[in-house]
Amino acid sequence: MAPKTNSGIVDRSNLIPFSSRLKEGKALAQDVWSIFAAANLPADCINLGQGYMNFAPPEWVTKAAEEALHSVAPNHYSHPRGRIRLREAIKSFYGPQLNRDLDVESEILVTSGANEGQYSVFTAFLEQGDEVIMFEPFFDQYLPSVTFNGGKPVYVPLHPPTDSKIKSSSNEWTLDIAELRRAITPRTKMIIVNTPHNPVGKVFTKQELEAIASLAEEFNLLVMADEVYDCLVFDGKEHVRIANLPGMWDRTVTVGSAGKAFAATGWRIGWLIGPASIIQPTLAASTRIVFCSNSPLQEAAATGLEQAKERKFFENQLSEYAERRKVLCDAFDEIGLKYTLPEGSYFVLLDISEVKFPEDYPFPKSVLGRGRDFRACWFIAVELGVSSIPVSEFYCDEHANIGEAYARFAFCKDVDTLKKAVERLRRLKEYM
Amino acid sequence: MAPKTNSGIVDRSNLIPFSSRLKEGKALAQDVWSIFAAANLPADCINLGQGYMNFAPPEWVTKAAEEALHSVAPNHYSHPRGRIRLREAIKSFYGPQLNRDLDVESEILVTSGANEGQYSVFTAFLEQGDEVIMFEPFFDQYLPSVTFNGGKPVYVPLHPPTDSKIKSSSNEWTLDIAELRRAITPRTKMIIVNTPHNPVGKVFTKQELEAIASLAEEFNLLVMADEVYDCLVFDGKEHVRIANLPGMWDRTVTVGSAGKAFAATGWRIGWLIGPASIIQPTLAASTRIVFCSNSPLQEAAATGLEQAKERKFFENQLSEYAERRKVLCDAFDEIGLKYTLPEGSYFVLLDISEVKFPEDYPFPKSVLGRGRDFRACWFIAVELGVSSIPVSEFYCDEHANIGEAYARFAFCKDVDTLKKAVERLRRLKEYM
Ligand SMILES: Cc1ncc(COP(=O)(O)O)c(C=O)c1O
Ligand SMILES: Cc1ncc(COP(=O)(O)O)c(C=O)c1O
Repeated sequence: MAPKTNSGIVDRSNLIPFSSRLKEGKALAQDVWSIFAAANLPADCINLGQGYMNFAPPEWVTKAAEEALHSVAPNHYSHPRGRIRLREAIKSFYGPQLNRDLDVESEILVTSGANEGQYSVFTAFLEQGDEVIMFEPFFDQYLPSVTFNGGKPVYVPLHPPTDSKIKSSSNEWTLDIAELRRAITPRTKMIIVNTPHNPVGKVFTKQELEAIASLAEEFNLLVMADEVYDCLVFDGKEHVRIANLPGMWDRTVTVGSAGKAFAATGWRIGWLIGPASIIQPTLAASTRIVFCSNSPLQEAAATGLEQAKERKFFENQLSEYAERRKVLCDAFDEIGLKYTLPEGSYFVLLDISEVKFPEDYPFPKSVLGRGRDFRACWFIAVELGVSSIPVSEFYCDEHANIGEAYARFAFCKDVDTLKKAVERLRRLKEYM
Repeated sequence: MAPKTNSGIVDRSNLIPFSSRLKEGKALAQDVWSIFAAANLPADCINLGQGYMNFAPPEWVTKAAEEALHSVAPNHYSHPRGRIRLREAIKSFYGPQLNRDLDVESEILVTSGANEGQYSVFTAFLEQGDEVIMFEPFFDQYLPSVTFNGGKPVYVPLHPPTDSKIKSSSNEWTLDIAELRRAITPRTKMIIVNTPHNPVGKVFTKQELEAIASLAEEFNLLVMADEVYDCLVFDGKEHVRIANLPGMWDRTVTVGSAGKAFAATGWRIGWLIGPASIIQPTLAASTRIVFCSNSPLQEAAATGLEQAKERKFFENQLSEYAERRKVLCDAFDEIGLKYTLPEGSYFVLLDISEVKFPEDYPFPKSVLGRGRDFRACWFIAVELGVSSIPVSEFYCDEHANIGEAYARFAFCKDVDTLKKAVERLRRLKEYM
């Protein structure tokens, strides 16, 4: 409660307290991205930490943004649902994949990055105390986005591969369906299913998704299908959309991202696809949160989706990413550290539990008192010159010890950079 | 609570209920923007309703966006605080106006439009049941943005001019400070002060702001200074920033918008300036809500602020807007309907209580059952071909009758369009 009087002497910063919602969900903790920001690391450190590309979006997509900038309307507010051209492009691109004639007026919502779309779904659907199930490790934004909206995160772990071979597949990270069932309570409102998965790279199988779907039906849960890496599924593996399983359309919202699809993470354009019963309330939320998304880059994303097929853009992009993945994983094979070969997304998990570093190394305060992986990643970044992200950040506090064994390396970088990184990482042998 | 079983027959849309927060604050009501959307009106209707420009941003600003698009980093995630170049530009531009050496690391936050910045402040500071005072009429987004974050809007009216002369000044819309004081309770957390004001055009005087400031000090309130129209203050009138009044910096967050400043409402770039005690919690909120704002248009906005002074951009833009205002207001003088000459912003309030229309006119359902102004604006749009916005939308339900007397006309349109609109509006004489 605000005190009734005020004097110049009192420290004002304490007088207007921020909301208690910021005290939950690690919202005020220094996040891993700031700790491992390039600015804190040696100047020539190669950044395989953050998940953005070190190359530009395709020229033909960028060109569409320029054309928009030279018109009038695409510089001004777009409809809160998104510009009609982009909604039409989403309809044409995703409609066949979802076996639906999507309604651009009620089943598609353009958002300011996938992130804001997901936040808006939480705002639109969570009641104070509603539980949201997420699989660990999880994309770290989920946690505070849920708690800010009054939700309670509930964690179900993906179990890491247990054998001792060097290379595991991301499909060896397994979901225990009985465990998932036990996590459901009368307050459960939503399950987040992220496939392809960040940071594991797992592409959920049809059987796994069917098992999740059947629980969602049984307990009447909303499913958020975070498929922002849908254009990055390797080796001919099938990307199954949970929205396509029988009965699931009505309870599933599928999340996409132009940033991931077109190497334009800074454009902040994403989309949600689902039934009107989910999209309309989410529109009401999104309209208040951002009003609308930026217009010029919506036009560019529209062009991207419109022309991707004839340009074989996603096929070509995928083979480029497959090459990048190979550079990194071949090196891990050679070094002899255990790692997870991802079926999808652009992340590789490296088991760093065997990497030795001096405990009295001059670590900064920000990594002390965190998991061992924070120190290992710091050591590798400073001593070898390649940054990665400690995976305990993607677990709740109780389960952080599972994540402590891993560092996440992003391969959304050009091959030359990856080759240079790999040269440096070879020195890991000295620390095993 | 979700039912435990589910069958194909049941209407699923009712099974996963949306959050009760959507039931407050008009969030699901059809808003005035959809009702008066161009698509619902005659094809050749001139749109003086919505507050976006019918011209493009300046070429030299757009060019900077293009350059960004051809680089790598400005296409990718920016720091959640905003790109450093834009933060530096904000510091240089606003620092002198605020008499401060602004700290780009803790006192400036780039947001996805002013709108998302304001939403993030509410998320960061409102506790369930906290009261937020806003002056009526108010920018309609405030209401649901406050209620979505658990806040309770409290309304203090600006009192319209009472005399019968044709032209009033927006400074004749007055605030009763005793009334403001009475509206403050132990739960009051924040006051929103929008100057220049949408839709009244009022530029609050130093005395008015001092009176508000002194109440904010006395009751320890946070002040949100929504100054998105700060570059549109006419006739040499002084734009006083409440953050500059003694003792107010520590409790004030000042809101700006690149959309309003550079005729680029669809770029979704805005900013917040204030003490670290306000900006840091707001950053924690904004980081989760959108992660960051789009990067290429941040670079463009930076260029805009960097070069505005040497190009005399805001001076020139202001005189263009003054000419636009004159076209519209001269016509209202001639027609003889009462109106408010705005000291700032790009809106004119026209008193339409004397405009007569047949009560059995074929109005659509969406405007029936709303204030008389909805019908009047509809009639004018359809019969005369000029759309405007009914002002009762900017009042709470209890006070909607005050707003019913007015239609808001936006003059952020080129002079030719305004002249054409004015030709049509002359026919208002037939309905008086
Ligand atoms: C799993 C997952 N979901 C959502 C997002 C957010 O995507 P966007 O950049 O479009 O907001 C990311 C970004 O890293 C992600 O990894
Ligand atoms: C008073 C006021 N505040 C804030 C905004 C939102 O500005 P932006 O477009 O930058 O989100 C507007 C837009 O109309 C406005 O009139």
